[in-house]
Amino acid sequence: MTADPWSLEQAVTNCSKAGIPYIGIWRHKLDQDVAKAATLIQREGLRVSSLCRGGWFSAPTPQERRERIADNRLAIEQAATLGAPVLVMVCGPANGQTLSEARATVLEGLREILPDAQKAGVILGVEPLHPMYAAERSVVVTLGQANDIVHELSSDAAGVVVDAFHVWWDPELAVQVERARGTIVGFHVSDWPVPLPDILMGRAMMGDGVIELRELRKAVDATGYDGPIEVEIFNEALWKNADHGLLQLMKQRFVEHV
Amino acid sequence: MTADPWSLEQAVTNCSKAGIPYIGIWRHKLDQDVAKAATLIQREGLRVSSLCRGGWFSAPTPQERRERIADNRLAIEQAATLGAPVLVMVCGPANGQTLSEARATVLEGLREILPDAQKAGVILGVEPLHPMYAAERSVVVTLGQANDIVHELSSDAAGVVVDAFHVWWDPELAVQVERARGTIVGFHVSDWPVPLPDILMGRAMMGDGVIELRELRKAVDATGYDGPIEVEIFNEALWKNADHGLLQLMKQRFVEHV
Repeated sequence: MTADPWSLEQAVTNCSKAGIPYIGIWRHKLDQDVAKAATLIQREGLRVSSLCRGGWFSAPTPQERRERIADNRLAIEQAATLGAPVLVMVCGPANGQTLSEARATVLEGLREILPDAQKAGVILGVEPLHPMYAAERSVVVTLGQANDIVHELSSDAAGVVVDAFHVWWDPELAVQVERARGTIVGFHVSDWPVPLPDILMGRAMMGDGVIELRELRKAVDATGYDGPIEVEIFNEALWKNADHGLLQLMKQRFVEHV
Repeated sequence: MTADPWSLEQAVTNCSKAGIPYIGIWRHKLDQDVAKAATLIQREGLRVSSLCRGGWFSAPTPQERRERIADNRLAIEQAATLGAPVLVMVCGPANGQTLSEARATVLEGLREILPDAQKAGVILGVEPLHPMYAAERSVVVTLGQANDIVHELSSDAAGVVVDAFHVWWDPELAVQVERARGTIVGFHVSDWPVPLPDILMGRAMMGDGVIELRELRKAVDATGYDGPIEVEIFNEALWKNADHGLLQLMKQRFVEHV
């Protein structure tokens, strides 16, 4: 997503040339043909770090909720086909329900698709989103809450995804990262610029904001997490100028700040 | 602040005419002459619910931090002169410090001015701000954290302010409101519209958003809080059309939704 204007083929080829070993895939890039995408990625010598995204359980009507469950099952299959170890779960907003109803719906939805994930060898990575997205994207808003959910699910096929942009502000962060020991299945980095220019598109390149990325990386390392670290930046200015320089800048900033 | 374009005199007179018994005063409205403001408010038969704001402790240099402490002492005096029982504390952003350094600076600042507040009979109301303001306004971002601070200070002159806009998303909200029993010294309402149009100016009139205001009001009531409830809406559209209809709308929505 850091290079959203690129096609999947461009992104994969460019990452491969730049010596980036993993790519996080978003489903809207798959163009329905998942097997073809898997072949392309394999041909270029890349591995898929995760597929994004499943979730969005808390639809307003029972009929739509059934559709979401079906879509999550499809996403699990797609992740398996791509060799993605993790399906990132953005759990969905309240959508007219109370927060506690929506949170119950999310847990119920995760429980329902968990056996499918287990069977497919895909881990559901519950990603807490920043509280400013509670109304529109996710009622799961803290790492503590994601940890509670994973504790409830109590399965090898459920873990948490730590995204620096979403969790950096949390006074409980260090405690909850440590509590997530053994269940962290993804780690995303970007930065929080000051002032934040936009609620959704405001993320910045690492080093252009205030997040203590190295400290967070060390804390995540200390839990034993040794999987890939994804750079995930939604930023229209970056997208507008996305050329090969983008991946070079990303690599440089990653080494300097993460 | 809901009627920011009004002068203090206009706001006081209009509230008095509308039968609103309390007014929350912001310091930039005082025009230096606090005694005159106190006389005006008393003449119109109003009471001051709180003075906003003290805090902003985490300045980047020691010299500026000394200035902030002095300014907080002035704010305490102003609150006492106005008969405001509470000085609302917006504790300040990280300002180039790490979050934990800034949080330590905040606690230290509160400790330093606490005796002044006690002497003046003014309560320091620690207000957690929404996490989206962590970088620019307040490193105190959850009610749990504000409760911890008040517990640390352990004084009748320290309490928490619950602002619906800032805390509604929190999975810990019910638990932390109950934990704040006996230390809630202010309660602010507004609403969170979907989509949120702006990070700072996006607040809406009660009923125009998704916050479960009545449930929160009942939870705050259940702790024994029986002080005033402040309507605090930063919204340029409301400000642009601020006339007598604003207070009528506010009263109506308050009754319907709070």
